[in-house]
Amino acid sequence: MSEKFYFMSKILVIGAGRSSSSLIDYLLNHAKTYHWFITIADTNKEAVELKVKEYQDVAEAVSFDVHNETLRETLIQKSDFVVSMLPAFMHGEVARDCVRLGKHLATASYVSQEMKDLDKEAKEKKLLLLNECGLDPGIDHASAMKIIHEIQDKGGNVTGFKSFCGGLVAPESNDNPWGYKFSWNPRNVILAGQGTAQFIENGKLKFIPYNRIYTQTETIEVDGYGAFDAYANRDSISYKIPYGLNDARTMLRGTLRMPGYCKAWNVFVKLGLTDDTYKIKNSDSLTYTDLIESFLPEGNISVKEKLIAFMGADIDAEVLEKLEYLELFSHRRMKLKEGSPAELLQNLLEEKWLLKAGDKDMIVMQHQFEYELNGMTKKLKSSLVVIGDDEVHTAMAKTVGLPLAITIKNFLTGKFKSYGVQIPISREIYEPMLQELEQLGICFQESEQG
Amino acid sequence: MSEKFYFMSKILVIGAGRSSSSLIDYLLNHAKTYHWFITIADTNKEAVELKVKEYQDVAEAVSFDVHNETLRETLIQKSDFVVSMLPAFMHGEVARDCVRLGKHLATASYVSQEMKDLDKEAKEKKLLLLNECGLDPGIDHASAMKIIHEIQDKGGNVTGFKSFCGGLVAPESNDNPWGYKFSWNPRNVILAGQGTAQFIENGKLKFIPYNRIYTQTETIEVDGYGAFDAYANRDSISYKIPYGLNDARTMLRGTLRMPGYCKAWNVFVKLGLTDDTYKIKNSDSLTYTDLIESFLPEGNISVKEKLIAFMGADIDAEVLEKLEYLELFSHRRMKLKEGSPAELLQNLLEEKWLLKAGDKDMIVMQHQFEYELNGMTKKLKSSLVVIGDDEVHTAMAKTVGLPLAITIKNFLTGKFKSYGVQIPISREIYEPMLQELEQLGICFQESEQG
Repeated sequence: MSEKFYFMSKILVIGAGRSSSSLIDYLLNHAKTYHWFITIADTNKEAVELKVKEYQDVAEAVSFDVHNETLRETLIQKSDFVVSMLPAFMHGEVARDCVRLGKHLATASYVSQEMKDLDKEAKEKKLLLLNECGLDPGIDHASAMKIIHEIQDKGGNVTGFKSFCGGLVAPESNDNPWGYKFSWNPRNVILAGQGTAQFIENGKLKFIPYNRIYTQTETIEVDGYGAFDAYANRDSISYKIPYGLNDARTMLRGTLRMPGYCKAWNVFVKLGLTDDTYKIKNSDSLTYTDLIESFLPEGNISVKEKLIAFMGADIDAEVLEKLEYLELFSHRRMKLKEGSPAELLQNLLEEKWLLKAGDKDMIVMQHQFEYELNGMTKKLKSSLVVIGDDEVHTAMAKTVGLPLAITIKNFLTGKFKSYGVQIPISREIYEPMLQELEQLGICFQESEQG
Repeated sequence: MSEKFYFMSKILVIGAGRSSSSLIDYLLNHAKTYHWFITIADTNKEAVELKVKEYQDVAEAVSFDVHNETLRETLIQKSDFVVSMLPAFMHGEVARDCVRLGKHLATASYVSQEMKDLDKEAKEKKLLLLNECGLDPGIDHASAMKIIHEIQDKGGNVTGFKSFCGGLVAPESNDNPWGYKFSWNPRNVILAGQGTAQFIENGKLKFIPYNRIYTQTETIEVDGYGAFDAYANRDSISYKIPYGLNDARTMLRGTLRMPGYCKAWNVFVKLGLTDDTYKIKNSDSLTYTDLIESFLPEGNISVKEKLIAFMGADIDAEVLEKLEYLELFSHRRMKLKEGSPAELLQNLLEEKWLLKAGDKDMIVMQHQFEYELNGMTKKLKSSLVVIGDDEVHTAMAKTVGLPLAITIKNFLTGKFKSYGVQIPISREIYEPMLQELEQLGICFQESEQG
C-alpha cells in the first residue's frame, strides 16, 4: 500500500479545556501522517506546552486572550482550519473571522443564529462550518440518522423517535448520593434546562417550562446499567425536518441523570438557586444556610424545617440526604465576594462533585425508535455506554473530541465535500465517523422489540 | 401680580400612546403661560394632529419612526427638553442623543444601566436626566420620601417600609371576574413579575423567583375600597440607601391586584403561558385549548380535567370561572400567525380586558411605615385612590403624566436645579410636585396607628 501524499494543512485549536484533551491527542497523533501543523491557543499556554512537548515538529502552543481581537485574527489568518472549543457564546466572532478570512471552522456546539447567518457566504466561498459534531449534539445525530436511513432503506416509516444522553459518573466511582461529578463545564450543568423544552408527543406540540422541567421526568432502562431519570432537553421539534421524520408523532430529545437526581435538583429550581441574572452583594458574609433561607418564606422554625414545609410532597429523605451531603444546612460561609445564586451554587458543587484522581466518568446514550414496516409496528432501542479511563482521559472528552477530530480529518482528506453550516446527519459525514468511532471502542448495542 | 417672563423652551414629546394623554394636555394647556413650543412625535401623526389642532401656535405634530436615527437626531437637536414616553428599552438611544446634543431628558421609567452610564457626562454638561417620575415609579417615591423626611425631622427612625401600587379598574366598571382591564401597555401586564423580586424582611435578604411570585402574596386593606392581593415587585433593596432607610429591617415594594387575580394568573405562570422567549409557528392553525394542552402532560381526559389535575390545590372554582371567562376551553382559533405564548395570551386578553367606552380605571397606592419615636414603635399608613374620568382620561394617564409634566415645568421655571440622573426623592423635586398634584385632586390619606 503506497502512502498517500497530503498537502500541508494548518489546524488552529482555540481552547484546550476539559473537553479538548481527546481532540488534541487525536490531532497530534495523526499530524505526521496527514501532514498537519497544529497550533493550540489557550489562556493557559504553559499547560498546552506540556501537551505539545513531544510533538515539537508538528505542533505549537500559543497564548490566547478572548478580548484581543487582533491576536485572534492573526491566528485565524495563519491557519487553514479552525476548531473552536470555546464556550458556545464565543463562537460567533470566531466564525465571522473564519468566513471573512476564508477558513473552515468546526465546533461541538449547537448551531446559533449567528452561525446560520454565515451559511450563504460560507457556501459561496466553499468553506465548511461544521457544528454539533461532539457527543450530544454530535454522536446522537450520527447514530440516529444511521438507523433512520436503514429503516427507510428497508421501506419502513419512523413514527416515533426519542433520544437520551447524559454525562454521568461510572458505577465504580459513584461515591456521592447525587451520582454526579463534573466531567465538563460545571456552569452548563448548573444552568441546564433553562428556557423551554419543546417536543412532539402523540402528534401534539408539547412545551415544558424550566420551572417544572425536573418534575416531568421519565425512566429509561439501559441493559446492564439499570434505570436513569430523563428530562426533555431544548427544542426537539427543530430536528424533525433535518432528520427526515415527517411522519413522526413523537419526537423528543432528553437528558439523563442518575435516579433521584432530578427530584433533588428541582429543589434548587423551585427555590431560585439556579438564577444567574443578578448578583448578591457581600455574599462572602453569608452562609449557605442564609442563602437557602433568603429564598424561603419567613417563619419561626429552622431553615431545614422551612424548606421541608415549602417543598411539601416534592421533598423526601433521599432528597434531604443529597442536600445534607452538600452541607447546605451548615454554617459554612460562601467564598465568592459577589455572585449570582447560580455562581454561588456552582462554587460549592465544584468542590463536592469533583472528579478525583482515578475517578472514571460515564457517557450513556439511548435512542428509541418506533416504526412501521410491512404493516407491522416495530420498536428498536440503540444504546451506547462509554466509561472514561481516568479523571483526565474522560469518556466525555473522548466522545466530544473524537467525532470532531475524525470529521475534520475526513474533510481534510477529501472523504466528504460539504460546505456552509453542516451537522453530522448526512451519510457522507456520519458513515466514516461512526466506523472509526467503533474501531476506537465507541459502539452502540441495538435491540429490536415487538 | 406681574407676569413673569420666561425664555422660550422647545419641548419634544416622543410617543403619544395610552399613558401620554394627561402629560400632553398639561403641556399644551401651560404652553402659552410658560412660553413653550411643544413638538409631539409619534408613529401615528394623524392622531396627534387632532390633539394639537386647537394649539396651532404653540404645538405641532410630527411623524416618528423608531428605526430612523437621522429623524430622531434632527428632532432632538431642534429641542431644549425631551420627554421620552417610548417603551423603556428604547430610552437608551434617546438618552445618548440628548447628552451628546446637550438636551435635558425626562422619562417615567426605571433608571437603566445605560442611563446610569450617562450620569457623569450629563452632570458635567448641566443636563437633567429625570427618571422614575410617573406613578410607580414616581408618585410612590415622592410621597414616601415626604413622610420619611417628616418622621426623620421629628427625630424618628423608620424601621420598616412597605409600598404597594396597582393600576386597576374602578368598582363601577368592574364587570369581569378578573377585576382587571388594561389601562396601560398590555405587554407589561403579561410579563409583569418576570425576573426575581428582591426585598428585606426582618433584617434578612429575601428573593422570590418568577415561578412563585403570584403564590407568595399578602393582603392589603384600603379604607373604603376593601382588600387587595399584593405581590413583591422587582428590586426593593436598591432603594434602601437612596431613601435613607439605613435602619429599616423591612423594605418591600409590591404590586396590587384585585383579590383572586394572583391565584388565577399563577395558572398561566405555572403552565408557561407568559413565556416570551420563543415563537409557536402556525399558531393560527391552533385553538386556545390546543395551546393550553401543549403545556400539559398527556392523558386520556379533557384539557380542562388535565389542567385541574395538573394544578392540584392551586386551582378552585373561582380560578376556573376566570379561565372560562377568557374562553380558554373553547375551540376558538388563535389569530396570530406566529406568536410567543405571551403574545398569544396578550392577543386574547386585549379583547377580554378592554377598557370600554365610559369605563373608569382606578389607581390604588398604599405606603406602610413602622418607625420609632421617643422610645415608642409607631405605625403609619398613607393611601391614595384615583378614579379615571373615562377610558381615555384614565387615572393611569393622569398619575403617570402629571408628575412628569409638573416636574418638567418646575425645572424649566427654575424651581429646582439638579443635573444628571435624578429620581423624585429630594425635597426640591417632590415638594412642589406633590403640592400641585394635591391641587389636581391627587392626594394621600394618612392614618396613624398604635
